[in-house]
Amino acid sequence: MKALSKNERGKGFSLVNQPVRSPLPDEVVLKVLVSTICGSDLHLWEWNDWADGFVGSLPLGVGHEMAGEVVDRGGHVEGLSIGAQVSVETHFWCGSCATCQRGLFHLCAAGGILGFHHDGAFAEYVTVPARNCWGAKEGENPLTTSLKEPFGNAVQTCDVQPLEGRPTLITGAGPLGLMTVMAAKARGAYPLIVSEPRSERREKASMLGADILLDPSSDSLPEAVWEATEGEGAEVLLELSGNADALRNGMAALAPGGDIALLGLPVRSVEMSLNEDVIFKGATIRGITGRLVWETWKEVDRLIHHQRVDPSILVTHQFPLEEHEEAFHLMERGVSGKIAFLPHGEIIDE
Amino acid sequence: MKALSKNERGKGFSLVNQPVRSPLPDEVVLKVLVSTICGSDLHLWEWNDWADGFVGSLPLGVGHEMAGEVVDRGGHVEGLSIGAQVSVETHFWCGSCATCQRGLFHLCAAGGILGFHHDGAFAEYVTVPARNCWGAKEGENPLTTSLKEPFGNAVQTCDVQPLEGRPTLITGAGPLGLMTVMAAKARGAYPLIVSEPRSERREKASMLGADILLDPSSDSLPEAVWEATEGEGAEVLLELSGNADALRNGMAALAPGGDIALLGLPVRSVEMSLNEDVIFKGATIRGITGRLVWETWKEVDRLIHHQRVDPSILVTHQFPLEEHEEAFHLMERGVSGKIAFLPHGEIIDE
Amino acid sequence: MKALSKNERGKGFSLVNQPVRSPLPDEVVLKVLVSTICGSDLHLWEWNDWADGFVGSLPLGVGHEMAGEVVDRGGHVEGLSIGAQVSVETHFWCGSCATCQRGLFHLCAAGGILGFHHDGAFAEYVTVPARNCWGAKEGENPLTTSLKEPFGNAVQTCDVQPLEGRPTLITGAGPLGLMTVMAAKARGAYPLIVSEPRSERREKASMLGADILLDPSSDSLPEAVWEATEGEGAEVLLELSGNADALRNGMAALAPGGDIALLGLPVRSVEMSLNEDVIFKGATIRGITGRLVWETWKEVDRLIHHQRVDPSILVTHQFPLEEHEEAFHLMERGVSGKIAFLPHGEIIDE
Amino acid sequence: MKALSKNERGKGFSLVNQPVRSPLPDEVVLKVLVSTICGSDLHLWEWNDWADGFVGSLPLGVGHEMAGEVVDRGGHVEGLSIGAQVSVETHFWCGSCATCQRGLFHLCAAGGILGFHHDGAFAEYVTVPARNCWGAKEGENPLTTSLKEPFGNAVQTCDVQPLEGRPTLITGAGPLGLMTVMAAKARGAYPLIVSEPRSERREKASMLGADILLDPSSDSLPEAVWEATEGEGAEVLLELSGNADALRNGMAALAPGGDIALLGLPVRSVEMSLNEDVIFKGATIRGITGRLVWETWKEVDRLIHHQRVDPSILVTHQFPLEEHEEAFHLMERGVSGKIAFLPHGEIIDE
Repeated sequence: MKALSKNERGKGFSLVNQPVRSPLPDEVVLKVLVSTICGSDLHLWEWNDWADGFVGSLPLGVGHEMAGEVVDRGGHVEGLSIGAQVSVETHFWCGSCATCQRGLFHLCAAGGILGFHHDGAFAEYVTVPARNCWGAKEGENPLTTSLKEPFGNAVQTCDVQPLEGRPTLITGAGPLGLMTVMAAKARGAYPLIVSEPRSERREKASMLGADILLDPSSDSLPEAVWEATEGEGAEVLLELSGNADALRNGMAALAPGGDIALLGLPVRSVEMSLNEDVIFKGATIRGITGRLVWETWKEVDRLIHHQRVDPSILVTHQFPLEEHEEAFHLMERGVSGKIAFLPHGEIIDE
Repeated sequence: MKALSKNERGKGFSLVNQPVRSPLPDEVVLKVLVSTICGSDLHLWEWNDWADGFVGSLPLGVGHEMAGEVVDRGGHVEGLSIGAQVSVETHFWCGSCATCQRGLFHLCAAGGILGFHHDGAFAEYVTVPARNCWGAKEGENPLTTSLKEPFGNAVQTCDVQPLEGRPTLITGAGPLGLMTVMAAKARGAYPLIVSEPRSERREKASMLGADILLDPSSDSLPEAVWEATEGEGAEVLLELSGNADALRNGMAALAPGGDIALLGLPVRSVEMSLNEDVIFKGATIRGITGRLVWETWKEVDRLIHHQRVDPSILVTHQFPLEEHEEAFHLMERGVSGKIAFLPHGEIIDE
Repeated sequence: MKALSKNERGKGFSLVNQPVRSPLPDEVVLKVLVSTICGSDLHLWEWNDWADGFVGSLPLGVGHEMAGEVVDRGGHVEGLSIGAQVSVETHFWCGSCATCQRGLFHLCAAGGILGFHHDGAFAEYVTVPARNCWGAKEGENPLTTSLKEPFGNAVQTCDVQPLEGRPTLITGAGPLGLMTVMAAKARGAYPLIVSEPRSERREKASMLGADILLDPSSDSLPEAVWEATEGEGAEVLLELSGNADALRNGMAALAPGGDIALLGLPVRSVEMSLNEDVIFKGATIRGITGRLVWETWKEVDRLIHHQRVDPSILVTHQFPLEEHEEAFHLMERGVSGKIAFLPHGEIIDE
Repeated sequence: MKALSKNERGKGFSLVNQPVRSPLPDEVVLKVLVSTICGSDLHLWEWNDWADGFVGSLPLGVGHEMAGEVVDRGGHVEGLSIGAQVSVETHFWCGSCATCQRGLFHLCAAGGILGFHHDGAFAEYVTVPARNCWGAKEGENPLTTSLKEPFGNAVQTCDVQPLEGRPTLITGAGPLGLMTVMAAKARGAYPLIVSEPRSERREKASMLGADILLDPSSDSLPEAVWEATEGEGAEVLLELSGNADALRNGMAALAPGGDIALLGLPVRSVEMSLNEDVIFKGATIRGITGRLVWETWKEVDRLIHHQRVDPSILVTHQFPLEEHEEAFHLMERGVSGKIAFLPHGEIIDE
């Protein structure tokens, strides 16, 4: 089969041919219908310091967000039929460490992550633990199925603190930031303030329901937020950019007793005024990784199937694996929405 | 009356004579029975960057932790009798801003803090809002009455996350750190690990119930904690030192999904590895300032009067106001426990 | 002034003439612009067992939901101007009992409730503690100002548990039930199922966003709910009817781990299958009384002024005090929406 | 093998001989070292209305609390060695229903309970899902291993609300009540008030740390509690008796805003004054069934192995299976502590 692989500790991916890995007794083989590109895949492609420290041994098959169809099953697998369409929870877990016993499966340090520590989803087929599969609804668009994983990240970012009626600032409106706008809107955040330097992304944020749009390259973030909230400040900051200045300016705009959720990955360490911005404000900062298994996935299905929040509208490009270089150049320039690979070539009509 | 005053933006305090301020209709005048020195008073005395930015106009009467006796009352005061012994909630609040409406009185930005923005308690008398007084129990030791304020800080640091049965690391065992040891022990933290460079403070922590003692000048904090917790890490970090290395090493020792409470004041900004230590760990950081009004005060009374946790055993020195230089030199050298001023000269037999 | 009064322990109210009570130092006198009728006022009017046990000494001025204008102030009152338009938090509190110290002002047993233990708002003027007043926005419709109190009840009923995306059953769609439909919709409950025997109230619930409407006189509640939720049951039950059968049927329709909020007042004791409906289901039941001071009021203002949820559309009748018998007969027959008294006669154009 | 079986819908159990059931691929066969008697087993033995409604088809092997040793494994089992000593989580779960997806495995309605819906632990051997086994510490007393299941119930009863420093009333001091006394003491409840009609059980509660003992047959519960708490009432009621009067009297003794946890099973429906005791008090009632998987088990290990809380001291009798009638007669008369069966005959020296 064809697969994108990181072969050496440097920039870029290679398209390779390799056999489909046979399933262990508790695993399934999935035919990859769609696999979408995450911001962290760009880190891998660029091979920055964070990627170098985070990834295990090479070569490594990359990619993790995906929709698949079950085509083979290990001998112990029950309850997943051949032909079923599924998403994959990309954080694997061991089930027996102290973290798993505390119910924090998504934080298990022993399990590894698909596409970072286990061969990934930018491939025609991928082999994963059966228990990591989350069934799609009948007739679900495979783009939607693939986007449940990152959308789950966005939902989890929203759900670690109350949002209803609270002035909320989202810094960064890339694809994940826009999914967070969708989720925060559904949760009742008001006013929903989005800070993003690219005008076309601000426009998308506006279409998705952002109430106030700021351009950090021209607006003074703290002042603009204080003004937009009649001097109260943002009660919530959702940091999606990974940019240290965005974080610091967002924290300066935070109301006393405010909540901060960090999902954007800062590539380097960040200098913070803990006194002023955290301690005397009585602020709370929560790091977000992955999603709750399966609580968040259930929330995601509710938002998508009941409340009609549709992350697939963010897909702007569909490529075969062969055009991976073009795909990542688009990502690098920050001009795309969500980009999907179609390893078997079928373009999806949204 | 005599009072310690910050007269100029530089090191030290002056002992001055000044009139007792007459109460406004909602205020009371308190005869100061005891006023104890807080670490933040040492910042004021040393006049570092943080103090320079935090304090308002000078001259300023300093000191805030105190036990007082009501000697005069404004015309609108009800329910506080002449002669009553009280502690003072040192964070004043306006009652009408957005922060107060959300019930976060201790974070009100409009009210100011006794001894930082209002003339303080290192004085023979002090005039404060009647509603900031918290009544002492019949026959309560005035040292205890004075220490409820900082002990409330320690209790609040413990109470923002569950501690029962959780491996807990406290960094810094100065007087406030030792109060936190007392409170964390009462809350059931286990094992209770204390990291502190001074041996005499480690010994006190041990007497107060710490299970494992570490010396950050010789032990590798993360490794020692991972060993002490059988590889699980600390589920909770209570940072009491204000030292950036202590914070970073403590965060490196944190288990996935762990909780961090920050009470120690770092004088400068702190560089943090948000990726590794917050985001991928799914950690939560909470800044602590003051105490909940009056929920924490009620908890403090329960711990002191029901569960026999007695912070007054930490008092090592009692001084008249005249000997303030000796008191602050002891504080500066870090060799004392809690130091009490007795503005009216009566030594208290513990 | 004119006022409605309960003069004897029996059915009905009397319209009396009595002097306006002069304010104590901490009180204000309000000119009553609007006072709306609550379901509990109907209990008072009918004088059932609950009313007989709950109310203190007679005669008693009745009514509590209101919009007022400050016309006189006691000598200690600050920060409330003559002419200001306000709502009134009808649960008074002492501020010093154990309940108040725990921050539960709305549950203070010492303070009493306006119109139940203190002369009330169905009058031309009413005298209340200044600190119980909550300022209206500039130009706010006095009907809205009056309805913030019951709407706060509805919001508090919604906010004691998460509602976003959760299948939610509301039993009872009288005026307070309809306000709860409005609040639950804003909170993202889905599907929002309303059970109510009167067809015109079901229609209103539908207009306000209820997704599924049930008639308990013909539908089997548990079965209909299980069907509507694809066998999952309601995760939340908001009981607004005070009807024991509605409660029991709602509990039978509850999903495992579900949440129940009780606001409707059952006049008599209720027989419950605790084993089946609470213990083995791991259910949680929360009694709701009043609103959080001031957290809920702030939420109410956010919903009304930011999210455009307008409880005043539920007002169906406006009467002068003289027509109180007609008003309560309408209430008794359950055919009205919210009914407003206009003690000074000005009809309000919505 | 020998096993206790419910053969007919009536009083008593039969000792039968039957084959050991072979494990399915995901199951293990456990040699039963100890199995202890639960209050619910007495309901089964007596065959009251609740038992008749709750149990599935007969004959049924009974018993669920147990310590076992792995002696055989199905073909898919990993990570559980032959010879390992384990407790069993007695609530089975399907892993795929809506309740399981919400993480509420202990409430899964599809899984059934050991000894109620699956052949149980009062037997020489029992066959259970491998994933329901919880490993014992090296050298752990099998009595302790068996008691973790009910002790987990007690811990969960304590942990659904905060207990530290809160006046807490426990009604019922049978074996499970006494375990709750142990857990509540470890959690810092104060004062810990226990109401129990049998004097020898009150004495045990006192030995285990209860601060105040009440006899409901002579003391007026509400008045005694109000007196013991200086008029504040109990902030927490832990109901362990299943007795309707105990519950009602306990609720009457509850402080405003108090919390109630129900673990005791009332055999019949209970009449409650919801107005007075739940709604106007703003009380919360939580039904407790089972334990969180595995969060509570981890807490149990912490309490036992770190904080030295030892439920095995409650064992008063050890019997071979043949003496089951004597064992249940003791249970019926309420004069024993915890009773253990030793299906293989070895008496355990505590």
